Amino acid sequence: MSSASSTDSSQLNLQPNNDSANAVAKKLDADETAGQVIAPWRSPLARAIHRNRAQPFSRYFQLATVRPDGTPANRTVVFRGFWADSNQLMMIGDRRSEKIEQIAENPAAEACWYFAKTREQFRLCGQLTVVTADTAHTGLVDAHQRLWQQISDSARAQFCWPYPKAPRADDQDFSPPSPDEQMPPPQFCLLLLAVDSVDHLELRGEPQNRHLYTKTASSAQGNSQQWQVTAVNP
Amino acid sequence: MSSASSTDSSQLNLQPNNDSANAVAKKLDADETAGQVIAPWRSPLARAIHRNRAQPFSRYFQLATVRPDGTPANRTVVFRGFWADSNQLMMIGDRRSEKIEQIAENPAAEACWYFAKTREQFRLCGQLTVVTADTAHTGLVDAHQRLWQQISDSARAQFCWPYPKAPRADDQDFSPPSPDEQMPPPQFCLLLLAVDSVDHLELRGEPQNRHLYTKTASSAQGNSQQWQVTAVNP
Repeated sequence: MSSASSTDSSQLNLQPNNDSANAVAKKLDADETAGQVIAPWRSPLARAIHRNRAQPFSRYFQLATVRPDGTPANRTVVFRGFWADSNQLMMIGDRRSEKIEQIAENPAAEACWYFAKTREQFRLCGQLTVVTADTAHTGLVDAHQRLWQQISDSARAQFCWPYPKAPRADDQDFSPPSPDEQMPPPQFCLLLLAVDSVDHLELRGEPQNRHLYTKTASSAQGNSQQWQVTAVNP
Repeated sequence: MSSASSTDSSQLNLQPNNDSANAVAKKLDADETAGQVIAPWRSPLARAIHRNRAQPFSRYFQLATVRPDGTPANRTVVFRGFWADSNQLMMIGDRRSEKIEQIAENPAAEACWYFAKTREQFRLCGQLTVVTADTAHTGLVDAHQRLWQQISDSARAQFCWPYPKAPRADDQDFSPPSPDEQMPPPQFCLLLLAVDSVDHLELRGEPQNRHLYTKTASSAQGNSQQWQVTAVNP
């Protein structure tokens, strides 16, 4: 069995869960009205998610990382909301995938999120964290477990499929016994993207609008962030 | 004026040209029936382009490169067909953009192309070439000029907008005199992606289908390529 592996597919394959999508939208709205410390780019992003919600793929974005050989990797992933009260984006992944190896060596990432209906793009640049059941942070492990419980049966089943990117297994190997719905298997990971800068481009403006958001400071807790917003040429 | 710049927007903003899209589709078909040396991944890609043609954004993909500081960059670009009889994908770009700087230092790239209607993803990994009017290759300079002539007036106008990513200029600066329709300005670049490997994932399969295409050899002309195709686990 090759060590080469990738389950980007396991993320992409997950049918968007509309209940979860609505919950995220509500969460964003609640954050705004409650005046919590949310980054200023969260408001236009929440608006884009809301306005494009009729297109299920509007919750997919492309996540770029760097391979150990210095070349870029790029794959589609599913947005799973923000972690707790933070500004960190959640995704899920398979520990057996090349992506997880890449992140261990170089956690830098840029998400490119294009919204087709409203014709706008967010480029979210930052650092990735991989969370497993072994992560020494109660809040993160709770989020990891909750996400496992929230995803669909078919999404959970994919984590029990044969080793990703290995030579194609028999079809019967893709019908494993259903995994435990409560406790995630070791291969299930939560990915968090902590964002340092955002480049928001709106193609519908006249001529177009483009805003850069740059994090200028963080408190010791990493939660209280200061951001600089600049209008720039598209 | 800052040297920091990016006109990813100049690519993204271009309205897909349906005539050009049809021409590409016809070209692909012609290649197939004529039995030309086209890479085996061209056939499923042509099919995906054709089946998703009703969605204009199906001609957009996300292009990842690596910044000089080793972090990944990722932005949406517009597919402009294949260069001549080659398997190289064409895009356009602005010489003033950060992307062009990045490519000069590290030409490695991965395009992630997700087709929403048919639910399939192509990851195209390879090397980028930047073509300008100064490029010492008649065929490439011809393609560069032809592309300039083919794009829309509004697409051409963007190359005459104020410096990308500089502090927002006055609105009136975004209405420059129309550029020459025949001769591209120095800031207009043709980008070519020479593909080394392709990862094609079809989510609609049962369970799913995933194929890897790897280039195993090239002739001296670089045109006669040999490819290995492997079915792997999704």
